[in-house]
Amino acid sequence: MANNESKLNTTPLKATAKSDKQKFLQAGTIEHIDVTKQPGIVPIVDAMRTMAFSSRDLARAADIYERMLRDRECGVILTLAGSMISAGLKKVIVDMIRNNMVDAIVSTGANMVDQDFFEALGFKHYIAGEELKSGLYDGELREHALDRIYDTLIDEEELRVCDETTGKIFDELEPRAYSSRELFREFGAYLERTGGPKCDDSIIYEAYKRDVPIFAPAFNDCSAGFGLVAHAAARGDRPRMTWDGGKDFYELTQLKMKSKDTGLFMIGGGVPKNFTQDIVVCAEVLGQDAPMHKYAVQVTVADVRDGALSSSTLKEASSWGKVDTVYEQMVFSEATLAVPLIVGYCYHKGAWKNRTAKKWSSLLEQPAEATA
Amino acid sequence: MANNESKLNTTPLKATAKSDKQKFLQAGTIEHIDVTKQPGIVPIVDAMRTMAFSSRDLARAADIYERMLRDRECGVILTLAGSMISAGLKKVIVDMIRNNMVDAIVSTGANMVDQDFFEALGFKHYIAGEELKSGLYDGELREHALDRIYDTLIDEEELRVCDETTGKIFDELEPRAYSSRELFREFGAYLERTGGPKCDDSIIYEAYKRDVPIFAPAFNDCSAGFGLVAHAAARGDRPRMTWDGGKDFYELTQLKMKSKDTGLFMIGGGVPKNFTQDIVVCAEVLGQDAPMHKYAVQVTVADVRDGALSSSTLKEASSWGKVDTVYEQMVFSEATLAVPLIVGYCYHKGAWKNRTAKKWSSLLEQPAEATA
Amino acid sequence: MANNESKLNTTPLKATAKSDKQKFLQAGTIEHIDVTKQPGIVPIVDAMRTMAFSSRDLARAADIYERMLRDRECGVILTLAGSMISAGLKKVIVDMIRNNMVDAIVSTGANMVDQDFFEALGFKHYIAGEELKSGLYDGELREHALDRIYDTLIDEEELRVCDETTGKIFDELEPRAYSSRELFREFGAYLERTGGPKCDDSIIYEAYKRDVPIFAPAFNDCSAGFGLVAHAAARGDRPRMTWDGGKDFYELTQLKMKSKDTGLFMIGGGVPKNFTQDIVVCAEVLGQDAPMHKYAVQVTVADVRDGALSSSTLKEASSWGKVDTVYEQMVFSEATLAVPLIVGYCYHKGAWKNRTAKKWSSLLEQPAEATA
Amino acid sequence: MANNESKLNTTPLKATAKSDKQKFLQAGTIEHIDVTKQPGIVPIVDAMRTMAFSSRDLARAADIYERMLRDRECGVILTLAGSMISAGLKKVIVDMIRNNMVDAIVSTGANMVDQDFFEALGFKHYIAGEELKSGLYDGELREHALDRIYDTLIDEEELRVCDETTGKIFDELEPRAYSSRELFREFGAYLERTGGPKCDDSIIYEAYKRDVPIFAPAFNDCSAGFGLVAHAAARGDRPRMTWDGGKDFYELTQLKMKSKDTGLFMIGGGVPKNFTQDIVVCAEVLGQDAPMHKYAVQVTVADVRDGALSSSTLKEASSWGKVDTVYEQMVFSEATLAVPLIVGYCYHKGAWKNRTAKKWSSLLEQPAEATA
Repeated sequence: MANNESKLNTTPLKATAKSDKQKFLQAGTIEHIDVTKQPGIVPIVDAMRTMAFSSRDLARAADIYERMLRDRECGVILTLAGSMISAGLKKVIVDMIRNNMVDAIVSTGANMVDQDFFEALGFKHYIAGEELKSGLYDGELREHALDRIYDTLIDEEELRVCDETTGKIFDELEPRAYSSRELFREFGAYLERTGGPKCDDSIIYEAYKRDVPIFAPAFNDCSAGFGLVAHAAARGDRPRMTWDGGKDFYELTQLKMKSKDTGLFMIGGGVPKNFTQDIVVCAEVLGQDAPMHKYAVQVTVADVRDGALSSSTLKEASSWGKVDTVYEQMVFSEATLAVPLIVGYCYHKGAWKNRTAKKWSSLLEQPAEATA
Repeated sequence: MANNESKLNTTPLKATAKSDKQKFLQAGTIEHIDVTKQPGIVPIVDAMRTMAFSSRDLARAADIYERMLRDRECGVILTLAGSMISAGLKKVIVDMIRNNMVDAIVSTGANMVDQDFFEALGFKHYIAGEELKSGLYDGELREHALDRIYDTLIDEEELRVCDETTGKIFDELEPRAYSSRELFREFGAYLERTGGPKCDDSIIYEAYKRDVPIFAPAFNDCSAGFGLVAHAAARGDRPRMTWDGGKDFYELTQLKMKSKDTGLFMIGGGVPKNFTQDIVVCAEVLGQDAPMHKYAVQVTVADVRDGALSSSTLKEASSWGKVDTVYEQMVFSEATLAVPLIVGYCYHKGAWKNRTAKKWSSLLEQPAEATA
Repeated sequence: MANNESKLNTTPLKATAKSDKQKFLQAGTIEHIDVTKQPGIVPIVDAMRTMAFSSRDLARAADIYERMLRDRECGVILTLAGSMISAGLKKVIVDMIRNNMVDAIVSTGANMVDQDFFEALGFKHYIAGEELKSGLYDGELREHALDRIYDTLIDEEELRVCDETTGKIFDELEPRAYSSRELFREFGAYLERTGGPKCDDSIIYEAYKRDVPIFAPAFNDCSAGFGLVAHAAARGDRPRMTWDGGKDFYELTQLKMKSKDTGLFMIGGGVPKNFTQDIVVCAEVLGQDAPMHKYAVQVTVADVRDGALSSSTLKEASSWGKVDTVYEQMVFSEATLAVPLIVGYCYHKGAWKNRTAKKWSSLLEQPAEATA
Repeated sequence: MANNESKLNTTPLKATAKSDKQKFLQAGTIEHIDVTKQPGIVPIVDAMRTMAFSSRDLARAADIYERMLRDRECGVILTLAGSMISAGLKKVIVDMIRNNMVDAIVSTGANMVDQDFFEALGFKHYIAGEELKSGLYDGELREHALDRIYDTLIDEEELRVCDETTGKIFDELEPRAYSSRELFREFGAYLERTGGPKCDDSIIYEAYKRDVPIFAPAFNDCSAGFGLVAHAAARGDRPRMTWDGGKDFYELTQLKMKSKDTGLFMIGGGVPKNFTQDIVVCAEVLGQDAPMHKYAVQVTVADVRDGALSSSTLKEASSWGKVDTVYEQMVFSEATLAVPLIVGYCYHKGAWKNRTAKKWSSLLEQPAEATA
């Protein structure tokens, strides 16, 4: 060896157990995505399976959702938080309903009432100019009765019509306690008797037609909340309808008890995530040893380090006995990027074609009404 | 100039309007914190005022909270999301109640029931070992009936006692619809008649004693939800109590309508944040042109770019007519770091000493019961 | 109006200037993505343009990159931080080089040396099992000489061969100061004379063949750093080659001075982002009033609230005179999701077909060698 | 049991191994911080030890730093990324130097040159008004030659003086290759011969006086980079000084080889983090089996899910053989909040009083100059 060559020390690498190094390398090698040959959703997601970071997680989440759909015994529950409908994901969810890719929806009230029902009444969401995101124009927006969601605008005058419509629907109900599921069916019936949605697609309407139950466990915290208050104020001391949040929990738990195997597709976290995970424990409280959710996928950018539920891992949920850990995957992505890829992938893979509608709404309407 | 010196071009800096550069520099210069001389909370926060990033935001938030407390006309509403009580912030909030630093609390159910009431029943939260945060032991934790919140453990058997206790309290109530505020008062009364909390401090108990109303707008989504379901299952067709989430909204709005000026101290986002901001609009729906929340502070690590409400800026809220923008500040920090500093600062500054208790619970108990 | 109907107050909405509300609504309405009809990259990105949040930002970023490619006067500089090559993005970048979609690359050393050159030597990156992400097996991985990057494994023994190879290349160079660009050309020449890369694609090799310069402004901070140290240790007091980081800055600035219009496609932040933005100011220091970067796109999940450069907005860069603000867009997404969509979109749109190679390496080799 | 009581099912909790549940509960219970009685930094951090989330992590990080200081054999290396000096942390770091709480600093160039040296030349950083954070005024700031770092302003005309001063210092050096450490000593010497810093405190000056070496492994990527380019341009073909980044790596590795036990206090990530971790491997390359860094603390808000080095866990570093995992802790906090608490805690605990200065600069000046 010539004098001026470097003498790199490669020997003392401490690979003391080289013989079984392979046990860590079973999962294969990273392969590089080729965007010149793979223009479609299915090959894109397929290519992501051998990449790293969020892309691999996304592919794995798509595989798990695909597996839920292939599992004929499994009921699929979609949970929805964040402003997903105003962000352009309405048709994705409507297509999930139409094609038996979801059996129940647990959502924030805003996604269903302020956004889906709002559009069903014929209104639209507007694209905000980039400069509005700075917040410096919010005072001026207020003067124009325009509400901002990050980069999107809502005409507050139109939203007030939505508020008012929910109040009118409540005014016509017989005075008793309702679950949010029952109320969403009333919203669907309202759309039906007023000529259907005044837009191409509506989650509430589609779910109404196909017996897919929708729950909003914080139903008071949305446009419908104004309707509830207006109804209560108008009735004064006379009997009135109320929203019974406990009944929501009871009903969703009954679905778990009847369905046994369940899979969760969670978009964002919040109350919908926690509430839906909790039905496993609630079934136990009611004396039935229901299995944990068998599959679970969550798309979120929430940071696990604040200890909040929205970001809590699905493994953590398993310590509570809520989610099984064999088929669980979190995807670190804002939902408008990841959800079209995951649902598009599973739509085109077609497992839903062998799936029959579970029609959980009708399941609830007999015994639930009787006992609750 | 010597030949070998560099000729740096400093002239063409385009400072075309140098004469008014000072208009951007009015806020003063950055001063460096000195930790050798400033050991106390007050001088630490004072020093942060002339630093940058989260420290300056924290100091400004403390100043705004201080300003809320000095404003005799202003009612202070605390909103709570995330597992804050299990994380060690219980006494901070109890001290806020004791010293007239808060007039109403809007919280996730879990903070109040699963965590504060749980500790009031004599149970404790446990510190989890570092390795448990990996999630790899969650299956084993499940076998031992230990629930994990990030780095904290709860004994599930103890939590079931908490669930059961809520059910017992509900069983004893006369069958009608209740707001969560009314139910929290029943929890406080339960503690009173069973000898007080079995620990040093309890938010629910302290609030009960001092007429500070507590709301959980998603009251079904916590330990009490199990109690609601158990109560409903036990009652079957017989009359029963229900939780009326619409009444929560009605009551909190009435406080806004009676109080006029309000300030928000928000720890985390979620339903408590949205719900509390919405009461301004709800007052308008009820025909009263209530002013926007005059002050608003939020401590959160949520990322604004997912468009969700938890992370939405307080400026954005002003486009909805909910929050005024003169005195608003978000603090990017996990709450266990920022909240002790903010509350500690304001405690030691002492503005609360000139403040009288608003006793909003009693305010609600006369007219609200009558009209709602 | 019947007595029991709610009387919602919709009048006092303060839309005092309704007549010009439309000025905020020019950008059109949110349209919902249809994943059943749009399987390809181009229609997916097109659909995202009228969605919200990250999807709209991604579509806008793709449009800006497309615009850079259509602008015949514009030189495109790619900056790379984060472990992007080990994550499966190598072929995307090689295709950018092959199709005249990039004119210069500024990267962390690791992406180029530890990952691209490493694969060119015939080695692979391995997919790590999910459980390894917990960190609990890292001690065991160390014993097996396996290095982990989040969810990916590298065989340290293979990486040492890469380190050693860089040292060998340095040993054969004449002793003088080199820019990292010159050294990457030596890496390319090494691959050429040893039979080409031992894998399908190599960024360093493709850039060498096509005269696309590569810079690593922190060239000491990667596998090549070990080579530099080994070379220095072996040479002792005798003359040796050195890496001259100042020359990197000088050379990249010269490209800016010769090219005038430039566009930045930034993946991650770090030194590559800052260094490349700074060449505008450096041109000014050298006495030439170079225009700001005309276009700028960045894909990152870094949070702006820590005040660090990686997350600093492109608007902020404009206060420094570095980036123009007409065509700039940040995309909040982990890169493995967003980059294939952006590059795939622009590849299939085909603006690169009318673009000629700028061959910036040869541009530098005449005057730069003479003057620097 | 009365008929109308709920029958909660608490039995089937699957706590199959109750007898050893205690093994998970050894770490004690959560105790609630009391801000009324604990105004000082030390009791605040002490109270955080039994809280959760970031507060507990911060207390553990403070304990580890305290442990580093008590370990007489351990050399402490501070790494600095992000704009920490402009943010008000200068005096904290100066106090660390003054009180033997740090033995070497590895920093971004900007913290040392653009910020500390800049202030030493008599300039100041300015507090930006809240509205400037929106980015909408950045064009106007540019016109006024004001540079923005998030919420802080720099007068670009003053910064050009700093650029120019570095060029002048380089012009006076004998033409050879320098490590950044040598160049920082020249900066210190410049301050000394021009009458000391024109402000209360300077890291570069204090480190110069106390033989604490400072490295900037990407020294070209800051104000000094402009100086390097100006110097090179002025010299033309004549001999000139160069910055030798490989020598930085060689020198820092020699410190590791001589010191053996080392502890890292990392503020932010970036090149300083990676570079400093790598010296363990580099020592091995040079034929010495140096122990991993024994202690490691990092304060960062970077998200681990992008796979980048800045956010990579200290456990992951241990798979590379860089950091031992017994005493390592990451703290999820923006640095201006956490660093004053950690350093303040350790300052007041006083372990540094028993520590002697390692004077690593002088250590390097004998053998390093001879061999490198």
